[in-house]
Amino acid sequence: MTDEHEVLAANEAFYEAFAAGDAGALEALFARATELATAHPWRPATTGREGVVAGWRAILEAGAPPIRCVDPSVILLPGGQAALVSCVEDTGDAPCIATNVFVREEGEWRLCHHHGAPLAPVFGPGEGPQAGSVH
Amino acid sequence: MTDEHEVLAANEAFYEAFAAGDAGALEALFARATELATAHPWRPATTGREGVVAGWRAILEAGAPPIRCVDPSVILLPGGQAALVSCVEDTGDAPCIATNVFVREEGEWRLCHHHGAPLAPVFGPGEGPQAGSVH
Repeated sequence: MTDEHEVLAANEAFYEAFAAGDAGALEALFARATELATAHPWRPATTGREGVVAGWRAILEAGAPPIRCVDPSVILLPGGQAALVSCVEDTGDAPCIATNVFVREEGEWRLCHHHGAPLAPVFGPGEGPQAGSVH
Repeated sequence: MTDEHEVLAANEAFYEAFAAGDAGALEALFARATELATAHPWRPATTGREGVVAGWRAILEAGAPPIRCVDPSVILLPGGQAALVSCVEDTGDAPCIATNVFVREEGEWRLCHHHGAPLAPVFGPGEGPQAGSVH
């Protein structure tokens, strides 16, 4: 597999663990030697393993819906040990946009940062109604 | 300066160029050898230099307000050539959360990806009313 395929596989594993509600599987996908962060709409970004892990556990315990990652796009970052994925998240309700940052540790691509936020039905300057075309 | 300070300076330069409405200064801060992306709430992420540059020009031409970056947090990524910044954006109105990914090219930290999204006054599972504490 190319690096790009490996990153996409790690990204898919993240959404599969989330959809399964499997906190242990999710945590196994997190980076270990790199700091962790999460950004969700309801509070400023959380940085630090303890808070990040607790945040994901709380989300899973609350019974978040399975989310499907649509049209992921990978950018491999210089240095060869980090990459980011942009995608739309199909939540079954309002779609979201995600940025997921992965790092290569011990030969595995692991999640370092997730930023998820709603795809709002509003139009930015010069953007037109593309937001409505996701579904 | 440490890498962390250099990344913070690049992040600050991004918000200064934006606040000045200076598209040329903004473009000078973008990565050149790495793919670019942007994620804003009103459409799925844009990937590719042409679309990213056009998107930022449209935002500046529409007269976006100056934005101040509050409490930036840096994570240096393995490989030593990429880093991410999480911060709250004080827009003068509703605050936003940003993830900015920088890459080191020719000794300079340059912006590769920006994801900006509203800090919504809603509470995630187990999160409580922290969102209201930003102001």
